[in-house]
Amino acid sequence: MLCVGLDPDPARMPFPLDGAHGATEAFCRAIIDATADLVCAFKPQIAYFASQGEEQALESICRYVRETYPDVTLILDAKRGDIGSTAEHYAREAFGRYGAHAVTVNPYLGTDSVAPFFEHGGGVIALCRTSNPGGDDIQSLVADGKPVYAHVAEMVARDWSTRGDCGLVVGATYPQELADVRAIAPDLPILVPGVGTQGGDAATVVEHGAAANGRGLIVNSSRAILYASSGNDFADAARAEAGRTAASLRLPS
Amino acid sequence: MLCVGLDPDPARMPFPLDGAHGATEAFCRAIIDATADLVCAFKPQIAYFASQGEEQALESICRYVRETYPDVTLILDAKRGDIGSTAEHYAREAFGRYGAHAVTVNPYLGTDSVAPFFEHGGGVIALCRTSNPGGDDIQSLVADGKPVYAHVAEMVARDWSTRGDCGLVVGATYPQELADVRAIAPDLPILVPGVGTQGGDAATVVEHGAAANGRGLIVNSSRAILYASSGNDFADAARAEAGRTAASLRLPS
Repeated sequence: MLCVGLDPDPARMPFPLDGAHGATEAFCRAIIDATADLVCAFKPQIAYFASQGEEQALESICRYVRETYPDVTLILDAKRGDIGSTAEHYAREAFGRYGAHAVTVNPYLGTDSVAPFFEHGGGVIALCRTSNPGGDDIQSLVADGKPVYAHVAEMVARDWSTRGDCGLVVGATYPQELADVRAIAPDLPILVPGVGTQGGDAATVVEHGAAANGRGLIVNSSRAILYASSGNDFADAARAEAGRTAASLRLPS
Repeated sequence: MLCVGLDPDPARMPFPLDGAHGATEAFCRAIIDATADLVCAFKPQIAYFASQGEEQALESICRYVRETYPDVTLILDAKRGDIGSTAEHYAREAFGRYGAHAVTVNPYLGTDSVAPFFEHGGGVIALCRTSNPGGDDIQSLVADGKPVYAHVAEMVARDWSTRGDCGLVVGATYPQELADVRAIAPDLPILVPGVGTQGGDAATVVEHGAAANGRGLIVNSSRAILYASSGNDFADAARAEAGRTAASLRLPS
């Protein structure tokens, strides 16, 4: 149930790659190769590529995952959200250009804003309760006796999931909200960021968020794995950290 | 108060440029030169560039606007919204790489998600009431007697505007909501998409959305101007359409 987030920050490159030509791509490939047998998904975060003008590296990394590890799900973390005519272009970007299996989306623009993603045959994973403190500002407003994030979970479970593959994003930093969302959407996959550097606990996530069959979670860790070591052993250290996180996600047998 | 949105759709290129090398950049430059003296802002929509792998064209177009028309505001329409460490990279993309003066953001992740944009000295324009029908799904939920979009307007007017330059997005297709948002945020600039192809009326927008001084609006039209003609006269036709829209935005003297 582990997902490794690919957030290649040039300020945190391990020193064997720091400043090297093609460092972003080489770093991501090394992390992918070191952890692929431990994960269900890789999740490149597009902002880290866009800030560096590294779209070609992202294309290459996505192709590498699809071709080398075809059983691993490729989630483009882009949090898209726009009106239909624009969303159509974001769908082409995510599923055509990058070949992602699913893309994260922001639900603020509602159901019609995600239709183009389904038409392109890709999955959408909607932000529901995010891992940051400011998530409260809008997501925790109470309407009709329920917080906004619960309305989002209901909208996705009721209206979106009949049209295509859907999931929800709930931060590991809010385990009670995770349990609430699981009750609203018993069968949907939930992508859970915030384990590791952001402070969420993997075992708590499984306890509160697993579906009835013990599965249904995609638990993301990015920085704790990517930057487990800044030395020559960065890939081995990433593998060790990913292994520890994966082990803590296993249910008691 | 007119803003021309740069949404270069390869399926709608005027025939003199259709299929030509560098068509996206040439098309945008022609529209910019034809309309620059009629506008307060240009607003490139990043999805249209990202779907084609045309980031370098976008860089070039942004640089062209800044250098050639330094008095025109450059708004990157990207509707970003992510946690702080990722938003930091989106801020670098918008204000560093593309040199935009402001970027559109999605408010769903709350106040801490926009802090990096202010730290980079750029402006943020937050989605409030969007122009699409699905905007109702979340934005019109009523919490504490007010719709979610009114809470967003209050959050931006109260908490964000003390930290940096802010604005709000309200669709021209919802004039009553535009008046409501103006009442909540008397002094903030409001970016109004949805005039033209989407059906919003420019004069109605001014009546409902102008600030007390008769200004405070950035009224965007994209497709009606960009695709006013598909022939050799596309730039002249765009200028004529932009002139008509600009005239309809003038207050009665």
